[in-house]
Amino acid sequence: MMIGVIRLKFFIDRLIEQIKEKQSAVCVGLDPHLDRLPGHLKAKYQVESAATGQKKASRLAEVIKDFNRQIITMVAESAVVVKPQLAFYEQLGPAGLEALIDTIAAARQSGLLILLDGKRNDIGSSARCYASAYLNPDSLSGIRRADALTINPYLGREGIEPFLADSSRGAFALVRTSNPGAGEIQNIRLKNGSPFYLKIGKLVESWGENLRGEAGYSNLGAVVGATHLAELKELRQELPHTFFLIPGFGAQGAGAEEAAAGFDDKGLGGLVNAARSIIFAYQREPYRTEYSEQDFALAAGEAARDMRDSINQALETARQRGRRL
Amino acid sequence: MMIGVIRLKFFIDRLIEQIKEKQSAVCVGLDPHLDRLPGHLKAKYQVESAATGQKKASRLAEVIKDFNRQIITMVAESAVVVKPQLAFYEQLGPAGLEALIDTIAAARQSGLLILLDGKRNDIGSSARCYASAYLNPDSLSGIRRADALTINPYLGREGIEPFLADSSRGAFALVRTSNPGAGEIQNIRLKNGSPFYLKIGKLVESWGENLRGEAGYSNLGAVVGATHLAELKELRQELPHTFFLIPGFGAQGAGAEEAAAGFDDKGLGGLVNAARSIIFAYQREPYRTEYSEQDFALAAGEAARDMRDSINQALETARQRGRRL
Repeated sequence: MMIGVIRLKFFIDRLIEQIKEKQSAVCVGLDPHLDRLPGHLKAKYQVESAATGQKKASRLAEVIKDFNRQIITMVAESAVVVKPQLAFYEQLGPAGLEALIDTIAAARQSGLLILLDGKRNDIGSSARCYASAYLNPDSLSGIRRADALTINPYLGREGIEPFLADSSRGAFALVRTSNPGAGEIQNIRLKNGSPFYLKIGKLVESWGENLRGEAGYSNLGAVVGATHLAELKELRQELPHTFFLIPGFGAQGAGAEEAAAGFDDKGLGGLVNAARSIIFAYQREPYRTEYSEQDFALAAGEAARDMRDSINQALETARQRGRRL
Repeated sequence: MMIGVIRLKFFIDRLIEQIKEKQSAVCVGLDPHLDRLPGHLKAKYQVESAATGQKKASRLAEVIKDFNRQIITMVAESAVVVKPQLAFYEQLGPAGLEALIDTIAAARQSGLLILLDGKRNDIGSSARCYASAYLNPDSLSGIRRADALTINPYLGREGIEPFLADSSRGAFALVRTSNPGAGEIQNIRLKNGSPFYLKIGKLVESWGENLRGEAGYSNLGAVVGATHLAELKELRQELPHTFFLIPGFGAQGAGAEEAAAGFDDKGLGGLVNAARSIIFAYQREPYRTEYSEQDFALAAGEAARDMRDSINQALETARQRGRRL
């Protein structure tokens, strides 16, 4: 008798499939800043009249669920991935985790992939607990498992492997982060003259060696900010099998042309994240003129389409430039 | 009219005060491994008969609350700090966070300081959300704020500062972790020939420069494992104002003599953590012979006293050896 083995698709292949299908490399960061959530939703859930901190937290969690569900509906067509930043949910305690669970379920229903931005890092049983919480099918956390998690590489391979045990799930390790002061550590020069981030990048490339999918990219990606353009270009050259999560687009200052430097010459290899500039698009131009606060999700949808189009345009320009060379 | 200003004591001064008062440098890690929790508690809360994952999670959370409260009562006399490892609580989702909240309240009531082991790391608003969740007095997370949090330094000073904004609270940054493979990254040689962990250690020392308390130690400590003895000694020499959280004692293999290398010549500067070897002491010799499973907390209490005494003995031996030199 044959025993049927269902081999789940590699995480990275599912990601690339979605990117190709939607013709989009957009990741929308779901970072619900409490002070920027729409006033009409805060009124609907009576946030202001909450008598205790606990009550306030659970009402804010309701606002976040409603807010995220509306955003998700409107960006599902043009975004490939949503990336909830765990800190924003944790600050509301158990109610915040309930909002996260609800958000993940909504994203799943809308066909979006889910990347949790937790920058988790630990070893042995602790790392396995994190993987269990966020990535395992039989999790007790209530989270209908996400597709990938951001992780911090400081503990070495031992802190990475527990997150890669299931090849249908992936991780993105911090390599060159988008914050202005990241160079203080990540640009430290090593004995061989190369910067620290490059060494980490090469380790990430090697740690993912046995987890490469059909397109040659591995289940272990890297976080490389678009705000450090030269490093982004260099890392794209040096790490041909490592998919990049590229933050720094939008509110942090980088544009589509910078982000495009993180892609390969087939226009693949990058997933570009924007959070505030999409989910709070109704608070900024050109969307503010067109959309009222009530229409925040419509504004987010348009901002996500605009982002997709501008990245595709930049990739097309880069491709044509490449052909001319 | 005079306006009274209450200046809260520095975190590090409160820690040192407790260490002196209790004559103990013991930190008990509250890492509730689900498969090692006592069977009679699992039976009491009917874990096995839970029909759904959610139900199981909330029953396991009840087990953890009960387990931790009993442990806390019995170690409060000989330990200074308890250190819940967040991963073990997160794996149970919202119910796990409720257990964490309860555990922190119990530890506070017993006069123990609370160090949350989350190895959190992020920048800007995300880092502030983490600080809000775990360290702020007006937190919406339900957590009656902890005293300190472990953090990961990979993002540079920008990822550290949000955790140090309140001088009554502290943080411990990863420098040289206790896992066997940590050297893969932390021992990388820099241009000037020194290892990466030493550079990070010196950055930590400088980041804490303006946050030094009465004894000269700063609110920003460092995590330095007892399993790498030479590095522990070196870092103790090089970072005179940085308090060390020293993991690796007990189940990970280091003893009191190794841990003592992380202390200064006044017998200060270190806080030694053990988790499994204390909280599951009833499962190992010599405690297993004396204590039944029902008496797990008594076993933990005795193991914590033994740990305190062995560290004090090692510090005394080191002091005498120092005097003879």
